[in-house]
Amino acid sequence: MKLIIGNKNYSSWSLRPWLLMTAHNVPFEEVCIPLYTPQTKARIRDYHEAGKVPVLLDGHTRVWDSLAICEYISERYLDNRGWPDDPLLRAEARACSCEMHSGFFELRERMPMNCRAQDRLVDRDPALDEEIARIDSMWCGLRARFESQGPWLFGQFSIVDCMYAPVAVRFNTYQVALSESAQAYQNTVLGHPAVQDWMAQALQESAVIVDAEVGQ
Amino acid sequence: MKLIIGNKNYSSWSLRPWLLMTAHNVPFEEVCIPLYTPQTKARIRDYHEAGKVPVLLDGHTRVWDSLAICEYISERYLDNRGWPDDPLLRAEARACSCEMHSGFFELRERMPMNCRAQDRLVDRDPALDEEIARIDSMWCGLRARFESQGPWLFGQFSIVDCMYAPVAVRFNTYQVALSESAQAYQNTVLGHPAVQDWMAQALQESAVIVDAEVGQ
Repeated sequence: MKLIIGNKNYSSWSLRPWLLMTAHNVPFEEVCIPLYTPQTKARIRDYHEAGKVPVLLDGHTRVWDSLAICEYISERYLDNRGWPDDPLLRAEARACSCEMHSGFFELRERMPMNCRAQDRLVDRDPALDEEIARIDSMWCGLRARFESQGPWLFGQFSIVDCMYAPVAVRFNTYQVALSESAQAYQNTVLGHPAVQDWMAQALQESAVIVDAEVGQ
Repeated sequence: MKLIIGNKNYSSWSLRPWLLMTAHNVPFEEVCIPLYTPQTKARIRDYHEAGKVPVLLDGHTRVWDSLAICEYISERYLDNRGWPDDPLLRAEARACSCEMHSGFFELRERMPMNCRAQDRLVDRDPALDEEIARIDSMWCGLRARFESQGPWLFGQFSIVDCMYAPVAVRFNTYQVALSESAQAYQNTVLGHPAVQDWMAQALQESAVIVDAEVGQ
């Protein structure tokens, strides 16, 4: 398999399936296409006409969205271990994942993932604060329920942790204060060896995307 | 089950799981909460703290995102008939659905679903045109491949058709010219009895959301 991704420093959507596959030792080759260059769109369209990363190539099959790739990997390579076993918890984990997939626009726009942006602060306002509070509350609520089963949102590591991994990175680089158990969860994410590998590789990159350089 | 939805005239996200459940005769009660009123957020939060519609209540289970609800209904009530049977086609259908779920921002912002907005036109520009062309191309490509298996995107009716149903409504009300087979698919969607019911019920509503009244 080949996973087409963007810059590791900036591409939060790329990190999500990359983390699922790496954490589960699913073998793949990665192809990194620097984003926001004059060639970017055409280079991605060589792989899929939707023109966005990530794209997964598996034989003749192409899957061109982060969440759809995670679903595919879980079904095809993980015997469905990508999600909690219990169908009701799986529904809840999908809802958490979908909430990230389709939302949190303030967070995404005003706190873009930027692994190198250590110790920065961005201006806050009520709309951004509300999104941060919602994520903090989600993380704390899940951790309280599943603490005895493991350190991840639903106990065991699952796709929902991949979906929120770039948020943990953002909360860290932009120094967002969290509730105690949300902070502990953030540390769990940042301590995952695959996340550490991604971050280390991001720090080696030199390309700068001006619009994603925010905060002071 | 209870499905919490917004105004039928405007709430494209509500239409998606409503259509899946209605088309498959899955019994549910609907609770309509008018959007963009001073009470809206609090009323939705009585059902789920994420504060968005749709929300599905099934016993103690709450699922609070359109795509996650569709996945849940497919698994729990449709014996997985919500998606194509073939795992590779299912991956592709999920990618199409996710592309809608996380994208097409120009279309969503500048052509909001508004069932009553018959015969209007909105200003076009290259960014909006590119999204329309991508959807046209997706629809035509899928119809060409699956024509012999039925009139829907992957032959048989599936979740991906629910995801694009509000787009068919928009292309109709805002008079967007499409390729021939995309147009034929649009007519298939608009002719579905459940879509016709939704539209008829939308026309009975009188609440106006000013920001969603666009075009001339």
